[in-house]
Amino acid sequence: MSLFLKAAWGEFTERAPLWMMRQAGRYLPEYMALKERYTFWEMCRTPEVAAEVTLQPLRRFELDAAILFSDIMTPLAPMGFQIDFNPGPVFANPARTAADVEQVRVPAAEEIATFVMETLRILRGELKEETALIGFGGAPLTLATYAVEGKGSKDYALFRQFLRREPSLAHALLEKLTEVTIRYLRAQVEAGAQAIQLFDSWAGLHDEVIYRRFGLPYALRVFDALTDLDVPRIYIAVGASHLSGAINELPCEVMSLDWRMPIPAAREAFGTRCLQGNLDPAVLLGTTSEIEVEALRILREGLDGAHIFNLGHGMMKEAPVEHVAHLVNVVRGFDRARALEMRPSVRGGGASGLQRGRWI
Amino acid sequence: MSLFLKAAWGEFTERAPLWMMRQAGRYLPEYMALKERYTFWEMCRTPEVAAEVTLQPLRRFELDAAILFSDIMTPLAPMGFQIDFNPGPVFANPARTAADVEQVRVPAAEEIATFVMETLRILRGELKEETALIGFGGAPLTLATYAVEGKGSKDYALFRQFLRREPSLAHALLEKLTEVTIRYLRAQVEAGAQAIQLFDSWAGLHDEVIYRRFGLPYALRVFDALTDLDVPRIYIAVGASHLSGAINELPCEVMSLDWRMPIPAAREAFGTRCLQGNLDPAVLLGTTSEIEVEALRILREGLDGAHIFNLGHGMMKEAPVEHVAHLVNVVRGFDRARALEMRPSVRGGGASGLQRGRWI
Repeated sequence: MSLFLKAAWGEFTERAPLWMMRQAGRYLPEYMALKERYTFWEMCRTPEVAAEVTLQPLRRFELDAAILFSDIMTPLAPMGFQIDFNPGPVFANPARTAADVEQVRVPAAEEIATFVMETLRILRGELKEETALIGFGGAPLTLATYAVEGKGSKDYALFRQFLRREPSLAHALLEKLTEVTIRYLRAQVEAGAQAIQLFDSWAGLHDEVIYRRFGLPYALRVFDALTDLDVPRIYIAVGASHLSGAINELPCEVMSLDWRMPIPAAREAFGTRCLQGNLDPAVLLGTTSEIEVEALRILREGLDGAHIFNLGHGMMKEAPVEHVAHLVNVVRGFDRARALEMRPSVRGGGASGLQRGRWI
Repeated sequence: MSLFLKAAWGEFTERAPLWMMRQAGRYLPEYMALKERYTFWEMCRTPEVAAEVTLQPLRRFELDAAILFSDIMTPLAPMGFQIDFNPGPVFANPARTAADVEQVRVPAAEEIATFVMETLRILRGELKEETALIGFGGAPLTLATYAVEGKGSKDYALFRQFLRREPSLAHALLEKLTEVTIRYLRAQVEAGAQAIQLFDSWAGLHDEVIYRRFGLPYALRVFDALTDLDVPRIYIAVGASHLSGAINELPCEVMSLDWRMPIPAAREAFGTRCLQGNLDPAVLLGTTSEIEVEALRILREGLDGAHIFNLGHGMMKEAPVEHVAHLVNVVRGFDRARALEMRPSVRGGGASGLQRGRWI
């Protein structure tokens, strides 16, 4: 089993597996070269190009996982939404009225983004055995945020109003998004994805009451519907440390942390689950010395359980490639077993958390 | 002493004093009427108009405090920044290089927005004794966010990079912003402001390490410099529940909570301080029944200490005026002493937290 999957399933790994959100993207000159020839949608929709973009960072850096190059909006197109990128998503027909929601289609699995499945099949053929392939989707609440608001926003006032004014319409829309997301993610696993990350980018907008009403139950259903596929399930909500109690109820193996939630606090909130994260992507813009300081801090904080090293948010387009390479070296060079042995004992017993390669 | 000031100083009040962030604004038809004749900057800079706008909500609703109508950008203009509103602030000359920061002026108190002081003097003359007058400013970190980024943004990538790449420039800029903010807020108190709220709208962008480096020390200095003026100091950070530990070190009498931080969690984090907040402004767009449910929940949660009722963020322009009026009635009708008496005892002693009008 690959290092990534071992850690995701909660096993001890001697080294923290590493991948980076938005590791394929605008900070890479080879990505920018392709971007001159294709629009973003064309790149996503052309399996050979999407596979090539997915592989670009793997050619430069020794990473433990590849993540499908796509966008969380992908399954919304076959639902009838007309979406452009500018560069964020812009909907020509947001869903705000009963008639709008009524018209939203729930396509069969075979109608949802077959190009994504083809991309995954190409990737699984290209990737080495030890490199995990991650599929992903948006959580229903986050997809609904865009589907209603129609575009990116600072505080999504329109969507937050919609939830208060039209709760039953909101539930009807979330039902449809949930069903399509389940079909879409199951198809990804069948096409070769070995883990699934659910992005709930806008969960943190809401208080716990609203999140428990419109977010949690639908994310839970998505994860629940993947149980029999036996792939680790990863959840990431952004700016959501106030929701930890609710989020902990999700049936998922990995909690991915944004750059603001400290790993020790997350261990307390999320128990023995694997934690993923959480270097602030802005750190990559600073000095190499600070990159080392921050990465080592996070690696040490991660020692108390299974840990996948990642950024706490998507890579910034300004990240210098050589800084990313430096980070990769630091993370790959960190020997977790040795660091545990060396760790000063806090309350007797020292590194006794680790026995026979399992966390106890 | 007014009800607002009593609560702000931590005393028991039989009713929770009430005001609402952005209570003067676009949801009021009388504001929109003025807005047709003046630009936003003109409204802020013309004392008679700014005072009139400040008073508009007080004429409609029985509120316990008025807050100066202005913008946190106001003191940045005399520092040499050219700022327009569209509708958010847009800087013609953001500060990003050593030369930029060097050029930023630190005006004397008399040069900083004298129109604001005139507005406050007019207001103090117009307001009833029992209505408190609140002055405000932006926290240095939040002002720097705009001064560097140059405009509103979803994740302020440029500013976050700046902090990592140019920490000493950042400190130099924060020094200047802190000094000007102190002068500006002291002048407001001298002109009649009876309490000061410091808005740290973008503190929540950062992890605790960065906040402790660039946010906390400067906000602390601002509050510290107001100590001798003997006015309650209010702090609000948005989306910052992950920073509570650091925020609790601030010398301020009132913690204002955004709509996501539950009051019980805030009581634990912030001790016996007065709490202000925290109805989600989106609730005002829903049904009157939900307004009641949510307002009463917050009022009950507030019973364990001094509590000023407020929104958890600025009023939305879509808020129906009659819903706001309904909220005001609900809050004003809530008898805290009686609610405490009626409260089922949790661990013996019942409402014993309240003795002789003081929280123990």
